[in-house]
Amino acid sequence: MQSAPTPPPAPAPSRRALLTGLGLAAAAPLALGVTARTTPLGQPADQPDQSAQAGRTVLLRGASLVLTMDPAVGSGPLGAIENADVLMQNGTIAAVGTALQAPRGAWVVDASGKLALPGFVDTHTHLWQAVIRGGCTDRDLFGWFQGCTDPQRGRLTPAALHSFVRLAALDAVQSGVTTLVDWVDIFSYDLVESYVRALAATGVRFTYAMFPPKPDAVLVKKVKKELVDPVPLGSFQVATHAARAVQDLNRAHWEAAQDMGVMLNSHVLERPEQRADDPIGVLTDIGALGPRLLINHAIHLTDDEIAAVAAHDVRAAHCPLSNMRLASGIMRLSEFRRRGVKFGLGLDGGTNDSSDFHALMKTAIGLQRARTTDAGVFPQVDDVLRMATLGGAEALGIADRVGSLTPGKRADLVVIDPAALNFAPRFDWVGQIVFNGRPENIDAVFVDGRALKLGGRLVEVDTDRVVREAEAAATRLRATA
Amino acid sequence: MQSAPTPPPAPAPSRRALLTGLGLAAAAPLALGVTARTTPLGQPADQPDQSAQAGRTVLLRGASLVLTMDPAVGSGPLGAIENADVLMQNGTIAAVGTALQAPRGAWVVDASGKLALPGFVDTHTHLWQAVIRGGCTDRDLFGWFQGCTDPQRGRLTPAALHSFVRLAALDAVQSGVTTLVDWVDIFSYDLVESYVRALAATGVRFTYAMFPPKPDAVLVKKVKKELVDPVPLGSFQVATHAARAVQDLNRAHWEAAQDMGVMLNSHVLERPEQRADDPIGVLTDIGALGPRLLINHAIHLTDDEIAAVAAHDVRAAHCPLSNMRLASGIMRLSEFRRRGVKFGLGLDGGTNDSSDFHALMKTAIGLQRARTTDAGVFPQVDDVLRMATLGGAEALGIADRVGSLTPGKRADLVVIDPAALNFAPRFDWVGQIVFNGRPENIDAVFVDGRALKLGGRLVEVDTDRVVREAEAAATRLRATA
Repeated sequence: MQSAPTPPPAPAPSRRALLTGLGLAAAAPLALGVTARTTPLGQPADQPDQSAQAGRTVLLRGASLVLTMDPAVGSGPLGAIENADVLMQNGTIAAVGTALQAPRGAWVVDASGKLALPGFVDTHTHLWQAVIRGGCTDRDLFGWFQGCTDPQRGRLTPAALHSFVRLAALDAVQSGVTTLVDWVDIFSYDLVESYVRALAATGVRFTYAMFPPKPDAVLVKKVKKELVDPVPLGSFQVATHAARAVQDLNRAHWEAAQDMGVMLNSHVLERPEQRADDPIGVLTDIGALGPRLLINHAIHLTDDEIAAVAAHDVRAAHCPLSNMRLASGIMRLSEFRRRGVKFGLGLDGGTNDSSDFHALMKTAIGLQRARTTDAGVFPQVDDVLRMATLGGAEALGIADRVGSLTPGKRADLVVIDPAALNFAPRFDWVGQIVFNGRPENIDAVFVDGRALKLGGRLVEVDTDRVVREAEAAATRLRATA
Repeated sequence: MQSAPTPPPAPAPSRRALLTGLGLAAAAPLALGVTARTTPLGQPADQPDQSAQAGRTVLLRGASLVLTMDPAVGSGPLGAIENADVLMQNGTIAAVGTALQAPRGAWVVDASGKLALPGFVDTHTHLWQAVIRGGCTDRDLFGWFQGCTDPQRGRLTPAALHSFVRLAALDAVQSGVTTLVDWVDIFSYDLVESYVRALAATGVRFTYAMFPPKPDAVLVKKVKKELVDPVPLGSFQVATHAARAVQDLNRAHWEAAQDMGVMLNSHVLERPEQRADDPIGVLTDIGALGPRLLINHAIHLTDDEIAAVAAHDVRAAHCPLSNMRLASGIMRLSEFRRRGVKFGLGLDGGTNDSSDFHALMKTAIGLQRARTTDAGVFPQVDDVLRMATLGGAEALGIADRVGSLTPGKRADLVVIDPAALNFAPRFDWVGQIVFNGRPENIDAVFVDGRALKLGGRLVEVDTDRVVREAEAAATRLRATA
């Protein structure tokens, strides 16, 4: 179904060096007198040079439908524009509209017949769990920890970890994820270093949410400063797991987060049994309730707890695929929404096994309907598209930069090709994106204006090798089991 | 992710004519002194000649894991064999085992590193509804009829219908469906003819379940005799929609089914409101309860009704993706299973929008867990794999011919390539088939020993043209709206 990748036309070596040196490629081609060229998506060509893409001016031309997710830019709640262009300059959205002028030197990408929208924001995942795909399928959360997560985590080497995280991060990117938050409870500096490097190498926008093993902020700050801060698209959170039994650790984590000016990111009431941990009570007691707190799953909250979360502008990540697999229960989305809580969607790593954001959106809709036998219940198609993009960005406090195709924001977007057996013919494209779309229909992915996927294939990635290396690492781990 | 298709080596014209004439190709190559040749899956080559495939001997060589679904053939409940070969001769499974001898002249397909299992049996669908993909996403069953199904059905022309059914049937095949039951309420002979021809052309094993508009068996028998019976892989059922208000029609349908010796196929209690229709009461009154009755959805049955269904060996189709989308409720699978009812899985056409059988299996598991917060509840991974294959065949009364890789059965099987970003590395392949697998991982599909998909691509199908023609037909329908 997929055609070969189409790279941007590579500039000549001398010019490329100049662009890299200037860091201002958007303007540079003008000075060099290069005229705009059009590359149809899906036409075979050489591998593109990623460095040449930095700062490049890209005009996505003539998409049949662009969902900007910004009602101020397009029409309706999704900010829709038909037959529209998207101009990316210097990694930002420079303009969205019909019949935009291609700046001289721009790389013009033909998107006719295709659909464009902001990239997906995955508010909660654990990429390293690619090593336990398909495992412990008959267990709930606790059984899954015991049977799969804990034994495998203890065996990881830096090289093996790198290969699993790279595989999973590339799977996320090919599925249209442009921002992800990775909650990681892996402790040694060399493992963390390997993890962050694998994330950084994929070109995805990421937040490394680090769970520190003890109430000692030194390692956390060192990781942030030395490993994450140097990555242009990397950011940091402190991860925790709120519970009375570890309240002092939770407090230390919150203090470290405050010191660094980052969010605290906690699992909360995923299983009914976790009522005994009183996580909302703990987070309240340590003073963490507020917009700098992200809670994951948030299924078994009382009405009062949802009210407290809403009153303090706490953010939430909804993980319906994981919740179904682990029999965790159904988050009361309508209640969260009624009270104005900001929430996004999360794939949640190994517990949903792969990175299909379309399946995630579809399940977010279906799970509430299964509970109510009411097809009118929140969320609807427009709602999940918002949750998957702008809603996720709002929950993470980064909606000033990503989540919609608003001029001035960073250029994170996906292009969907509807000309596929599982997607065509056109009837209601917005509904089809959610209910028919699959990762294989994602034709192109841009993060910060850089093409990570084109013509249905990852750019500059030897996918076979990535898979082979992850397989070899898994084989070695099994041998040490 | 996908490589080019690999056809069987085409015999020389004179030999091909001979094989076709003999209808005994399995033995013929021996007589002609042709030796076995190996074609690795995924190696580019010319388009295969389908006629040359008829009766061909195919040896699938060295699959890393074969799930035969027959405990008498392999080990465990799924009949698993590692590093195994599957020999197909004359459209049947001739042998499954390790290190099988390739008959001279056999087409040897290298399946090393891959997983093989019986093709998926879709016990309930409506392929023509590809024309309303993504439509009426905020409606329940009745709203969806009114807003999408009914208006579109009335506009169909034979040519348009052909293009939609072909698109949807090929989507099913590429997703690993090898048998499907299509419940169709389309009335005129020319439309039905167009429908059946589109189904027949895809090479899928199908049952055309025809809903006749009035209690007149003439048209039904004509369609069966003239259109369906001549198709080697086609079979027939009479479709109905049991309800007190149309009890006489239901009775006529049941009588026609009995006359023809085929199953009666009815929607039953999909919505809670359909309690008023008393469908089980009607089916009881007309004497249809028995192994020749297939009931679809079967969500809102009382305990007594489930007991009656079980006591009479009535068969059922479970459609979890559709049930979630339409807010229909959750079928009580454990109750059906506890009482020994035979049931399979159904994609249910337009209401789940595409043909992802992996999503269907995953959802069949997750939906019961969402209801119970119990990860141990039926079905588990082994159960859904059985429901998707042998269980479906049992429900349809065709388990003597399909549903498992038992020597003597027809050769319907799929090959999965786990070497993909969303699937690797190996941890628990059986779990990964269900939780990680996606249609794009289906590397090859054989129906009746004939390759319909190879190297990730449909054989002898111009997919772009199929999509383009369906799109053009949809555009014309919109113009007449």
